[in-house]
Amino acid sequence: MLSERLTYYSELTEKKLGELLVEGERAPILQESMGYSVFSGGKRIRPALCMAACELCGGAPQDAQLAACALEMIHTYSLIHDDLPAMDNDDMRRGKPSNHKAFGEANAILAGDGLLSLAFYALSLCPHTDALAAISKGAFEMVMGQSLDVNSGGDESLLRQLQDYKTGALFRAAVVAGAACASASAEQREALVRFANAYGMLFQITDDILDCEGEASVLGKSVGKDAERGKTTFVTIYGPERSKEYAKTYARDAREAVLQVGENAAFFNELISYTLTRKS
Amino acid sequence: MLSERLTYYSELTEKKLGELLVEGERAPILQESMGYSVFSGGKRIRPALCMAACELCGGAPQDAQLAACALEMIHTYSLIHDDLPAMDNDDMRRGKPSNHKAFGEANAILAGDGLLSLAFYALSLCPHTDALAAISKGAFEMVMGQSLDVNSGGDESLLRQLQDYKTGALFRAAVVAGAACASASAEQREALVRFANAYGMLFQITDDILDCEGEASVLGKSVGKDAERGKTTFVTIYGPERSKEYAKTYARDAREAVLQVGENAAFFNELISYTLTRKS
Repeated sequence: MLSERLTYYSELTEKKLGELLVEGERAPILQESMGYSVFSGGKRIRPALCMAACELCGGAPQDAQLAACALEMIHTYSLIHDDLPAMDNDDMRRGKPSNHKAFGEANAILAGDGLLSLAFYALSLCPHTDALAAISKGAFEMVMGQSLDVNSGGDESLLRQLQDYKTGALFRAAVVAGAACASASAEQREALVRFANAYGMLFQITDDILDCEGEASVLGKSVGKDAERGKTTFVTIYGPERSKEYAKTYARDAREAVLQVGENAAFFNELISYTLTRKS
Repeated sequence: MLSERLTYYSELTEKKLGELLVEGERAPILQESMGYSVFSGGKRIRPALCMAACELCGGAPQDAQLAACALEMIHTYSLIHDDLPAMDNDDMRRGKPSNHKAFGEANAILAGDGLLSLAFYALSLCPHTDALAAISKGAFEMVMGQSLDVNSGGDESLLRQLQDYKTGALFRAAVVAGAACASASAEQREALVRFANAYGMLFQITDDILDCEGEASVLGKSVGKDAERGKTTFVTIYGPERSKEYAKTYARDAREAVLQVGENAAFFNELISYTLTRKS
């Protein structure tokens, strides 16, 4: 059920992403480097959340297709820039060389800049102007999270703020933009924000656990990087067992929030269960 | 007259930019690094063009204030990323250390990403949705121009395409967004595009001439970098004299185009004259 639904949303996203990337055809290396990272087997969780939120609020997934693509382009740009030597200096991403390893640093910086710009071009084609507000806010908060991450050793309270910006912001943007594309009520949007806040924490904690306990071959990226860099994560503060308890608590909060949005929340509930036990 | 008008537009822009940058207050280093480059004495040509186009089409400058700020933030982000070691590797910008020299590479990448994101957040507050279409298209074309510049030796035909994207695109975005904020007619927007195409070439050619003949102390940045890098520019293809002839021709085209938009084009005509003879 979940995997079928994810595949369906993913296909809708990829079809439109392909159309949008044609905009870059007069700069072939830019187009190629953007496509290299955008079409590299990502799970498309943010577009799926966006379209699922749209459906849960009574819209069709297609109503949120442009917003979904914008989110995926923003997520992809952030990965490209995060992997740069001056940032996390990661050579691998999704099982293949990271963008700057394949195209060089200058092209990787531009691939990121291009995707971020193209994301907002996609939103200029979307008639639901609230989607722009949600997504631009999320994009900016994500950069704030990165900045906090780069510049601070971090205690617990900062960690939560940082993770909320780094991971939560784009999940919030996804569900609020999806709701906007269905002209959802303020109550529905607020419940979706509560969902995204909890789901973002769940996602980040399980990500931290995977970096500590996961297998590189399954993840398609290096593991143990957090510890190597001395980064403060949920696992370094609470240890893996208490982190897993936190994950369960956030999963419960996420389920409760989504119940208040609408019926047919099966996709969300299955996604929460999947994320709680994910291996990649 | 021109300098008074530029000062007026600049003050409107800086006031609103200050308000927008408050969004970054929870990530102090990001906020500081964005402000460092945004408030570093730029001439604010793009915001001025945006507000002047709005006025020429019958609006008030304030109607285009958010779009003007978005343009300046996008222009500033592009300078920050262009100066990075992996790109042009420039240590000086506007008479002081470039962003990555002051804050380090990671923070400079994020300052650029943050400004680009915040630009679109500003546009989400602007009720004229056409402004988003114009500016997001311009932002993406600018990246295409950078990519062509980074990746190609370049012949004459490519040079014009490249310069059109690198410099022309954001000027087009500025005047079309300004016109959109005045609900201008299609004819006015088209004439403004013709103005921007010509003005962009004028601006780029005089920029190339300054890099060859200007003084670093007046420019606030290094000179002779194009030649040093073996870059193809108007001056390397045509030499300074023929380049100056081209500049005059584009200035005339720009004047003719702006005449077709509306009366009171004094600002535009003075700006064209100023650019034709600029020293910085």
